[in-house]
Amino acid sequence: TSLHSRLPSSSQSLFTAKAQKGLTFEALAKEIGRNEVAVAALFYGQAQPSPEDITKLSQVLDIPEEQLSQQMSGFPDRGRTLDLPPREPLIYRLFEIVQNYGYPFKAVLNEKFGDGIMSAISFSAKVEKETDDKGDWAVITLRGKWLPYTRF
Amino acid sequence: TSLHSRLPSSSQSLFTAKAQKGLTFEALAKEIGRNEVAVAALFYGQAQPSPEDITKLSQVLDIPEEQLSQQMSGFPDRGRTLDLPPREPLIYRLFEIVQNYGYPFKAVLNEKFGDGIMSAISFSAKVEKETDDKGDWAVITLRGKWLPYTRF
Amino acid sequence: TSLHSRLPSSSQSLFTAKAQKGLTFEALAKEIGRNEVAVAALFYGQAQPSPEDITKLSQVLDIPEEQLSQQMSGFPDRGRTLDLPPREPLIYRLFEIVQNYGYPFKAVLNEKFGDGIMSAISFSAKVEKETDDKGDWAVITLRGKWLPYTRF
Amino acid sequence: TSLHSRLPSSSQSLFTAKAQKGLTFEALAKEIGRNEVAVAALFYGQAQPSPEDITKLSQVLDIPEEQLSQQMSGFPDRGRTLDLPPREPLIYRLFEIVQNYGYPFKAVLNEKFGDGIMSAISFSAKVEKETDDKGDWAVITLRGKWLPYTRF
Amino acid sequence: TSLHSRLPSSSQSLFTAKAQKGLTFEALAKEIGRNEVAVAALFYGQAQPSPEDITKLSQVLDIPEEQLSQQMSGFPDRGRTLDLPPREPLIYRLFEIVQNYGYPFKAVLNEKFGDGIMSAISFSAKVEKETDDKGDWAVITLRGKWLPYTRF
Amino acid sequence: TSLHSRLPSSSQSLFTAKAQKGLTFEALAKEIGRNEVAVAALFYGQAQPSPEDITKLSQVLDIPEEQLSQQMSGFPDRGRTLDLPPREPLIYRLFEIVQNYGYPFKAVLNEKFGDGIMSAISFSAKVEKETDDKGDWAVITLRGKWLPYTRF
Amino acid sequence: TSLHSRLPSSSQSLFTAKAQKGLTFEALAKEIGRNEVAVAALFYGQAQPSPEDITKLSQVLDIPEEQLSQQMSGFPDRGRTLDLPPREPLIYRLFEIVQNYGYPFKAVLNEKFGDGIMSAISFSAKVEKETDDKGDWAVITLRGKWLPYTRF
Amino acid sequence: TSLHSRLPSSSQSLFTAKAQKGLTFEALAKEIGRNEVAVAALFYGQAQPSPEDITKLSQVLDIPEEQLSQQMSGFPDRGRTLDLPPREPLIYRLFEIVQNYGYPFKAVLNEKFGDGIMSAISFSAKVEKETDDKGDWAVITLRGKWLPYTRF
Amino acid sequence: TSLHSRLPSSSQSLFTAKAQKGLTFEALAKEIGRNEVAVAALFYGQAQPSPEDITKLSQVLDIPEEQLSQQMSGFPDRGRTLDLPPREPLIYRLFEIVQNYGYPFKAVLNEKFGDGIMSAISFSAKVEKETDDKGDWAVITLRGKWLPYTRF
Amino acid sequence: TSLHSRLPSSSQSLFTAKAQKGLTFEALAKEIGRNEVAVAALFYGQAQPSPEDITKLSQVLDIPEEQLSQQMSGFPDRGRTLDLPPREPLIYRLFEIVQNYGYPFKAVLNEKFGDGIMSAISFSAKVEKETDDKGDWAVITLRGKWLPYTRF
Repeated sequence: TSLHSRLPSSSQSLFTAKAQKGLTFEALAKEIGRNEVAVAALFYGQAQPSPEDITKLSQVLDIPEEQLSQQMSGFPDRGRTLDLPPREPLIYRLFEIVQNYGYPFKAVLNEKFGDGIMSAISFSAKVEKETDDKGDWAVITLRGKWLPYTRF
Repeated sequence: TSLHSRLPSSSQSLFTAKAQKGLTFEALAKEIGRNEVAVAALFYGQAQPSPEDITKLSQVLDIPEEQLSQQMSGFPDRGRTLDLPPREPLIYRLFEIVQNYGYPFKAVLNEKFGDGIMSAISFSAKVEKETDDKGDWAVITLRGKWLPYTRF
Repeated sequence: TSLHSRLPSSSQSLFTAKAQKGLTFEALAKEIGRNEVAVAALFYGQAQPSPEDITKLSQVLDIPEEQLSQQMSGFPDRGRTLDLPPREPLIYRLFEIVQNYGYPFKAVLNEKFGDGIMSAISFSAKVEKETDDKGDWAVITLRGKWLPYTRF
Repeated sequence: TSLHSRLPSSSQSLFTAKAQKGLTFEALAKEIGRNEVAVAALFYGQAQPSPEDITKLSQVLDIPEEQLSQQMSGFPDRGRTLDLPPREPLIYRLFEIVQNYGYPFKAVLNEKFGDGIMSAISFSAKVEKETDDKGDWAVITLRGKWLPYTRF
Repeated sequence: TSLHSRLPSSSQSLFTAKAQKGLTFEALAKEIGRNEVAVAALFYGQAQPSPEDITKLSQVLDIPEEQLSQQMSGFPDRGRTLDLPPREPLIYRLFEIVQNYGYPFKAVLNEKFGDGIMSAISFSAKVEKETDDKGDWAVITLRGKWLPYTRF
Repeated sequence: TSLHSRLPSSSQSLFTAKAQKGLTFEALAKEIGRNEVAVAALFYGQAQPSPEDITKLSQVLDIPEEQLSQQMSGFPDRGRTLDLPPREPLIYRLFEIVQNYGYPFKAVLNEKFGDGIMSAISFSAKVEKETDDKGDWAVITLRGKWLPYTRF
Repeated sequence: TSLHSRLPSSSQSLFTAKAQKGLTFEALAKEIGRNEVAVAALFYGQAQPSPEDITKLSQVLDIPEEQLSQQMSGFPDRGRTLDLPPREPLIYRLFEIVQNYGYPFKAVLNEKFGDGIMSAISFSAKVEKETDDKGDWAVITLRGKWLPYTRF
Repeated sequence: TSLHSRLPSSSQSLFTAKAQKGLTFEALAKEIGRNEVAVAALFYGQAQPSPEDITKLSQVLDIPEEQLSQQMSGFPDRGRTLDLPPREPLIYRLFEIVQNYGYPFKAVLNEKFGDGIMSAISFSAKVEKETDDKGDWAVITLRGKWLPYTRF
Repeated sequence: TSLHSRLPSSSQSLFTAKAQKGLTFEALAKEIGRNEVAVAALFYGQAQPSPEDITKLSQVLDIPEEQLSQQMSGFPDRGRTLDLPPREPLIYRLFEIVQNYGYPFKAVLNEKFGDGIMSAISFSAKVEKETDDKGDWAVITLRGKWLPYTRF
Repeated sequence: TSLHSRLPSSSQSLFTAKAQKGLTFEALAKEIGRNEVAVAALFYGQAQPSPEDITKLSQVLDIPEEQLSQQMSGFPDRGRTLDLPPREPLIYRLFEIVQNYGYPFKAVLNEKFGDGIMSAISFSAKVEKETDDKGDWAVITLRGKWLPYTRF
């Protein structure tokens, strides 16, 4: 099934308004005062907006606040956008990084921190663009709280 | 099946020697002059060592160079260590980041770079530890060349 | 589910107009100045058109440019047309070639180029027809940039 | 499970002898008078050798002909080397080409040939290397007999 | 999902008309001059009709030829009707025959013909009914061209 | 995993002796008085031999009868030789026939016999070779008892 | 997807009428003269009604006979109601019985009957309620014809 | 993988001794005073024997009690013998009964007992053979405690 | 597909009314006299309401009783809300607890109770919130009847 | 494959010694000063022991400390013991609780805590036995830190 049939109704309102306004996530992020990855996550229904987020989004995108507030109420039902394994080439490469470097990451993290995990909830991410003489480089930074296993 | 039955024979030689020497990946990385994630990837058979890597690894780990050279010859057959979806909690969280933020990453990357992908081959990664008053934080940085789709 | 429910809305506009005009991909490719595989990929939503592509397609196919421009805006969400494994007999045989000759291709490519991959992004393809006394032959040529693994 | 546990016993004899002799598939192909992809397919147990192939392979690789003849007798049980979907990055990209361009290939092939398939049996393949100022390019050519559906 | 949602729009036209006319596939096959399995394959969208097939079907079934011609234009997208493994008991038994006798068929075919396959494209099938004192017997005959692997 | 690791211990005894004797299934079938598909099914552990079958097989193949009797005692545990979906090209095409023609077969069988199935147990099969000016043709005949659904 | 979207259109007519009439399957079974499991199978589209069944159902349930006759015409496409493995707790326990006792049933059946199967087609089932001082007990009886494998 | 590699070590001891003694499950069941299905479940490691069961089994089968006691100690790890879906034809038919009649069973059980399940733990089963003029019939009776959902 | 398309029609009525009234499950649970987990289960169609539950729900939520009664009639078809494995991060962690601690739970339960299971039907659950100086803690208590395997 | 082939080598040492000593997890937990679920998790390789745990386990179980220390060194590779979905009946019921009550738990937790998850890492569990006049009850308590989603 297509991606859009898996997204909440707020997604269509947001994407349509964003296209009509011709705004980028970078511009929206500045207006709202948040990271552009976080803003995109709001668009895909993968994050819960604060009331202020809703107010600002409705202003910047000219969507009636009541409508947006109703569409984005409730708690997100995360994780439904992705095929397993991912088929989209860009997203597959992110998955392939986990597939190929997952155990190396675990080995290095365990040595640095002990037994535990990097949280995907107490977590933030950012995307940056670098350019050198070899071309453009995408840099994705993942930052999560280290959670040691509880001893019981 | 257990993880070790999926790894090449070099993995056992390397992990056993590392444990006997009591060396960390960080220490090995300094000795060999490479990133510790890359060194761990060599241990798991997910990367091809240069001849110099083999010489240095055999010296630092007291493994006969001829043995290591033979075990690590050939080109890696990558990707066999992982279950789909990953069951190991630490690795699952990396996968969950792709699952939840995959499309937001794609949306932001496309806006910054156009139609294309971030390479997982012309690619490097690093792991860092940060500490603040809230606790420890793991920071994973992924850096890949941007590849635009060829027009034909 | 049927194939058409997985395609973007632009696909229906394009395929309907192409059928009404009675045009082949070969003819369209000449009009637009692109390879016929690339044109078919545009029809299936697997490639991003340039603004010129949209203008030409709208002219040749008599589709209002504004409609086509709106339907084909945004970045493609690739990879949703295929079952895994493919069930369509023609496409299955392409998959079977990968299944049976994948490791032989990898072995020969690694020997010629070293450790790396053939890009599917910096990539083009063409389809040709040959005929000899044994019958007709389909020739598919895949050409991709060689990407060596980054050393880090 | 590892790749080698899925290969027939002849594979180990052949790969070991090839490594000891330091021969490439290109060199072997010249000695035996066949395409290097076909030779690699013999090594992976994905093709049936002729008696002459066995004689020549045993000579070039210094493997007793009787042993090789016995190991390579019988008809190949093809297709067991691959995960579904492929996890090996190089092979995944070949699969991704089928995933993304499968229907475009089908559309173009059907227009050129009518209803039918490109055979993967009456089939040959070759791998070539091209170099230009942008770098190295891998070119894979697939050539298969066109089989129209029988009318009954 | 139900079977009918996977079939092309022509299927509904054909099945509805056939039910209203009270015609069997056997009767239709005689009218059209084709095998009844082939006719049923046309109904399920698993085969491409010739222009004469469309003319005759529209006449026998009282469907406007233009409508049928439009619905059955294009090349079939085969293989979407089946679950994997099949759940329908009748079809599961055909699958079970492949599951249990697949390797025996392969062993006998290889001995008779050498290395190759029986084509499913240069292929025809028929269904017959036999009756003896033990009851009724269904006889399905599969006839396909033998394709030897190309040597290259 | 390889095919042989899935077969019972009798399979190795039988295949080894058959290769040493240089006998075909056709020859064995004549010696034993059974169909060659049935003999191959015995070799793959997909059928239960009668005591006479064991006696004759041990005589023709020079395998001690007691050994064979012990290895082939018990009831077959059928169905373990096949991947799902089949990856072996020859067997895949048999599967593809079920995939593409399954519902047409069902439609024709239901019209001829009513609601029920063709048994895969009260069942026999044969393989024949035909040759005409277009080449060789494999003909597989499947014959099964028709079982109507019980009314209760 | 919900269960009802997988059922034929007759199911909705039947279930709605049954709820309005307040009739149980037990009552319906008596009216129609069939087993209540068989009646429920008719409701779920898992069995083919006789013309008399349709007449009686239309009378008892006040559904126009013509409508019911049209909705229940054709041969059932069985097996689409179930997830694999079943998720519904009651049905999962039936599946678990097969999972845990499948080989014990096979072992005992083979000893009693020889090599063969219990038919699921020449088959009937019934459900009974027993009560003792420990509580209520459900008793499901499965009765199928024994089919020995044909010798050929 | 073969069935025997999935069974506990006790299974081999038991099946080997049973074959040497030439005993049926029926005979063993009488000796031990239990149902033959339950005895077969002990053989496949799907049930926990009482100490008396072990004593009697060791006596009847001439297996040292200490060996059997050690092999059968611990709690069963049930459910590993079965493929999903089952491929063994006899067991598949049991599964097909659940697939086709699962919802009818649920509908009838719910009407008789209310909301709940038939236990597969407080459960027993038996296998019987009936013969009439149409042939042999297998009768499997499943009897489980009815468990209503707790209201909380 | 989205979660809501898998829920029964009663779910929409209930969730909409609850949002309009601004009521929590905790408040609803007090009004109805049931546990808040049980009330949420009613909302998701995972439990069967008593007639009193329906009356109270209709009063508290201002939904016509007849409508609610009709929507919630019939027996629940449980288990359709969940992906396998779960993708929703909160629910995945519950699944991960089963994945990581399943066998430890089994080992401890077997030692305390013998061979058997903890019922998920004669079962209740509650959710509590605890707060200490480290933060908030969620406590989920699962309580199920112990069912020993029947000896037969 | 059997469970034991998936466990680390320490598991066999520990389980064998525990059986020889005749110790329960409850007794071991008291000796070591930890929860019995945690001790069982150490046995299954699902938790990392502290050096003191190893010392105490080696003393209580008479396993050489050096051996145990070596076998239990390194960081656990969690999650490999479980089938997906679980087939073991006891563990399946735990999974079924997640399947049926997962969304109700999420709904109640979100209302009590806001958007976030219950940690499975900052987590402990206990198992208790209760007995009343209706029989025995197993009570499993899961306690995890609440982690709110980071705002970024």
